[in-house]
Amino acid sequence: LPVAFGSILGALDYFGTIVFAASGALLAVRKGMDPIGAVFLAVATAVGGGTLRDLLLGRAPVFWVVDPSYLIVATVTALVVFVGTRVLALPEWLLIWADAIGLATFTVIGTEVARTAGAPAVIMLLMGVMTATVGGIFRDILCAQPPLILSREIYATAALAGSIAYGLLQAAWGLTDLPAATAFLVAFALRAAAIRYHLELPKGRAAR
Amino acid sequence: LPVAFGSILGALDYFGTIVFAASGALLAVRKGMDPIGAVFLAVATAVGGGTLRDLLLGRAPVFWVVDPSYLIVATVTALVVFVGTRVLALPEWLLIWADAIGLATFTVIGTEVARTAGAPAVIMLLMGVMTATVGGIFRDILCAQPPLILSREIYATAALAGSIAYGLLQAAWGLTDLPAATAFLVAFALRAAAIRYHLELPKGRAAR
Amino acid sequence: LPVAFGSILGALDYFGTIVFAASGALLAVRKGMDPIGAVFLAVATAVGGGTLRDLLLGRAPVFWVVDPSYLIVATVTALVVFVGTRVLALPEWLLIWADAIGLATFTVIGTEVARTAGAPAVIMLLMGVMTATVGGIFRDILCAQPPLILSREIYATAALAGSIAYGLLQAAWGLTDLPAATAFLVAFALRAAAIRYHLELPKGRAAR
Repeated sequence: LPVAFGSILGALDYFGTIVFAASGALLAVRKGMDPIGAVFLAVATAVGGGTLRDLLLGRAPVFWVVDPSYLIVATVTALVVFVGTRVLALPEWLLIWADAIGLATFTVIGTEVARTAGAPAVIMLLMGVMTATVGGIFRDILCAQPPLILSREIYATAALAGSIAYGLLQAAWGLTDLPAATAFLVAFALRAAAIRYHLELPKGRAAR
Repeated sequence: LPVAFGSILGALDYFGTIVFAASGALLAVRKGMDPIGAVFLAVATAVGGGTLRDLLLGRAPVFWVVDPSYLIVATVTALVVFVGTRVLALPEWLLIWADAIGLATFTVIGTEVARTAGAPAVIMLLMGVMTATVGGIFRDILCAQPPLILSREIYATAALAGSIAYGLLQAAWGLTDLPAATAFLVAFALRAAAIRYHLELPKGRAAR
Repeated sequence: LPVAFGSILGALDYFGTIVFAASGALLAVRKGMDPIGAVFLAVATAVGGGTLRDLLLGRAPVFWVVDPSYLIVATVTALVVFVGTRVLALPEWLLIWADAIGLATFTVIGTEVARTAGAPAVIMLLMGVMTATVGGIFRDILCAQPPLILSREIYATAALAGSIAYGLLQAAWGLTDLPAATAFLVAFALRAAAIRYHLELPKGRAAR
């Protein structure tokens, strides 16, 4: 690759933080919370997945305590959204597609962090999925509503597919740049297809 | 004892993981979640208590990152439940009694882990209770419903009784096999009595 | 100062633990939970904020595993409240004002702990706010209701103002006694004004 995907990923990391923070702040606004509520929800959504990942892997202090720029980016995003939504309604499709980029980015980063920490393969997969999805779960729980992503269109599954792609390629070639780029594309493509064609996994149904 | 209770406990540990995972997956099915939701709820229920225990005690990475077999067992259980419930309704009483065995097992393991970590006596008791009950609390919170075990029939109390039995016997004799077996029986017997006779603690009632 | 504020703060720490535990136990009583539920909610409310702070900063085992007196104080408080509310209704204003003292105390302690751990300035502020507010968020989530403090009268904002006062004074003079006392007064005064005059931040409002 002419350009290292690592540096692109670094930029996408902040992009993902902004997008996830915005989704948290937007829900806070819709629930009639105040600016502090918007910041709480934005931070929980943006760094929640990576935080749980770090705690479970024993990486403490967690990433945003070491580098508070993520916290600052999420806070500023929350305040911009809080004020901005009073005058301007963001189109829903913009958020959904931006979120898909965030999902793919956080999947790759989560998988890489777990690999760097020397975690077993199955833990690598889980950490990819968790980094991408747990923030959204925290957001919904903080609003006392059942987590959307556990029943909606394909979402965590896209993260899982990306993680698996990363794991297979990394095991086969030992590099990280190509696996990361591929994992990003796999996760994004599957989520994009889910958005476009409303793909869903079958829902649970209990026999009587 | 002719057979070390430790090896029985090791088998019961996986049994408890399966039972707790099944209870999480079943609730996910009833709430109409997809397979990913079922796996999330199963994992949170099965390893949630032990995970919080490990984090609070400073044992990181947590137990199932070190030994992912628990994660795999919970995931497979969730998928079996998700598919199986479409064709077969498990009788409720089977789950309730299996859960009682899981409760007693996790109580003993949680108390032992805290003792091994050198925690004070009162922390040992709490970790026994938490290991056995927090997974169920996570399960309910993830479905945005108030945790059943905080208001239902005697449940956490049975874990507490088991932990206390372990603590007293272990302090008196210094062994761990007899205390573990006794604690298991105490917790199971109290929970069994609660199931059989619908024993409840008094509910809170506010003066006006 | 003739008396070191540190020793006053040590006493206020237990006072805050009692007050926060009482608020958790009271909600448990109102929700019809049993004594175990009351203890769980009391403990989660009283030590929840400090626990998350410790985990995020990498201070494990967490403070109340090292010194279980906080756990014992919260448990005893819960049982006293559980029994006491059957015969005696505490006046609401007493709780609200006691809670304001707890808020100010936990803010100062959280900010100090983060400073001692060598955290960056923005993390110090957040840890002050989190230590004072996250217990109340846990309490509400455990009852499956949206956290009050994310939409109500000024609350987390008072903690933030206290943290900022501490940070500025500590950076300017390097001492900790005067900043701690000032931060306490700032947080308490702002919360007191919010209670007295029903001060609120503007709520979120979405454009259409």
